[in-house]
Amino acid sequence: MTMRAERGRVWALAIHGGAGAGRQEDGAEALEREIRHALADVLDATAHLLSSGAAALEAVEDAVVRLEDSPLFNAGKGSVLNERGEFELDASIMDGRTLRAGAVAGLTTVKNPVRAARLVLERSPHVFLAGPGAEAFAAREGAELVEPAYFETERRRAAFEAAKRNAQRALPGDTGTVGAVALDVHGNLAAATSTGGLTSKAVGRVGDSAVIGAGTFASNASCAVSCTGHGETFIRATAARDVAALVEYSNLDVEAAARRVIHERVASLGGEGGLIAIDTRGRVAFAFNTALMLRGAVTHDSPRRVGIRIDDLR
Amino acid sequence: MTMRAERGRVWALAIHGGAGAGRQEDGAEALEREIRHALADVLDATAHLLSSGAAALEAVEDAVVRLEDSPLFNAGKGSVLNERGEFELDASIMDGRTLRAGAVAGLTTVKNPVRAARLVLERSPHVFLAGPGAEAFAAREGAELVEPAYFETERRRAAFEAAKRNAQRALPGDTGTVGAVALDVHGNLAAATSTGGLTSKAVGRVGDSAVIGAGTFASNASCAVSCTGHGETFIRATAARDVAALVEYSNLDVEAAARRVIHERVASLGGEGGLIAIDTRGRVAFAFNTALMLRGAVTHDSPRRVGIRIDDLR
Repeated sequence: MTMRAERGRVWALAIHGGAGAGRQEDGAEALEREIRHALADVLDATAHLLSSGAAALEAVEDAVVRLEDSPLFNAGKGSVLNERGEFELDASIMDGRTLRAGAVAGLTTVKNPVRAARLVLERSPHVFLAGPGAEAFAAREGAELVEPAYFETERRRAAFEAAKRNAQRALPGDTGTVGAVALDVHGNLAAATSTGGLTSKAVGRVGDSAVIGAGTFASNASCAVSCTGHGETFIRATAARDVAALVEYSNLDVEAAARRVIHERVASLGGEGGLIAIDTRGRVAFAFNTALMLRGAVTHDSPRRVGIRIDDLR
Repeated sequence: MTMRAERGRVWALAIHGGAGAGRQEDGAEALEREIRHALADVLDATAHLLSSGAAALEAVEDAVVRLEDSPLFNAGKGSVLNERGEFELDASIMDGRTLRAGAVAGLTTVKNPVRAARLVLERSPHVFLAGPGAEAFAAREGAELVEPAYFETERRRAAFEAAKRNAQRALPGDTGTVGAVALDVHGNLAAATSTGGLTSKAVGRVGDSAVIGAGTFASNASCAVSCTGHGETFIRATAARDVAALVEYSNLDVEAAARRVIHERVASLGGEGGLIAIDTRGRVAFAFNTALMLRGAVTHDSPRRVGIRIDDLR
């Protein structure tokens, strides 16, 4: 424990914008520059909150809202289209101090699904709401609503049309799900995840981003985790909880636990993707078995760093 | 390992019909006798399958279908009503050999939700479907459909009216969720869970019974688990996966793991409920912190036993 830790000024933040195959597309280099800038901006803004004493739960919601609002990522604006060419958005959030959680699936008009998940956490007797019931709850509690057309971007429409041409039901390669994990100066952890899901997914498909223990988990007893990738595999692997369970029950450090879950557990099921995690001492872990994971981190004593390829940062 | 184990004839089955407070109601004694008979009949029928060599996955589906078809339990026929006086059914199933899984939430016309979950496991590229999309998938794949009125029973209608009179949003006391866990003679585990949820629950509420890792989990690396109780707490606790994680990562036996999850983890979050579990050697565990849990078990070398109160069977 450093002197800073004893003075209670330890904090840490990590975010991701999805893991994927890095398909060749026109303007890939310009897109990559944009993504790096967007991740850096989100880290700077949310780090300011954390260093000013904000709660981890506030910080992860803030970071995910910013990522949802960017058209670059597959969450909120910029989400992918389902098999009907419509949007169905999933999100969840968890407070490591209390283990309170909120999750939503199949939203169609809530601008920021992670805010709806937070409203479930704060104001519902339930933890998980799906479909029109989730939508009605969020609207009643004051969540900002938009027309579905708000979510649409040219890039995702083109991917949808390509998927239809190729009769692909889902494109696992390029998900672009977003997430955030944070440790605050009060010693509390939190995690949040948000996604539009898989291109051309079935109507009603719920991914790991809406499932506590799969895409999102946080406990002050271990760590905070947000996942991205082939959601079906992450649900079967209970991936986020498994990272935390390995820390809590097997005494692995967060880096080793993250690597084991991605490179052994998820990989053994044929799954691709990645995750970010932060433990109670502010140690940040990234792990992914895809070509790319859009990611970044900043802590009380390490400068902001952003990466896309495996060797961009460790 | 016994000689029977070496000859591959070890099998085990446990079922539950929910955990609850045991409210005084008219005819409680007669109801209890009916419940004991129903549990015994399900155990006998499904044990016959297992001892004849059926797969654990077949056995847990079979047992849960039988429990869904009984009006005595809160799943399929006999489900509780949501805040609108309607039925929204959740179920999930998991194969411990492959970690394949299927989950459905918010079904309104599928007679046997666990069959829909099995169809998701077998025939969908996805693991989890909710709402009309889940319904349409199940119908397309040949699941038997019924009018919503099929699910209704006098007893649950009365509970709903009572909840409305008392302005209770949910009755945690008497859930009656059903579930089954099994070890087959091939050495494979499986688990399944099905429920109507909580009386007067919000429209769109998803409970732990639809969440892999919360209400249902199975892995040949550890054990098979099915939970019942206050679903919100079981999701936050990732209860089913936690029993398995304690077996897999902390080397606890299944009985100790089950007790720790219910009496420490779930209880520390203020949650009430119970679970059943079976490990790879066929050891059966029950744990609950409610007055009652409707439950039973039978194995290759122990006779069928059925219990309701804490001291009915250990």
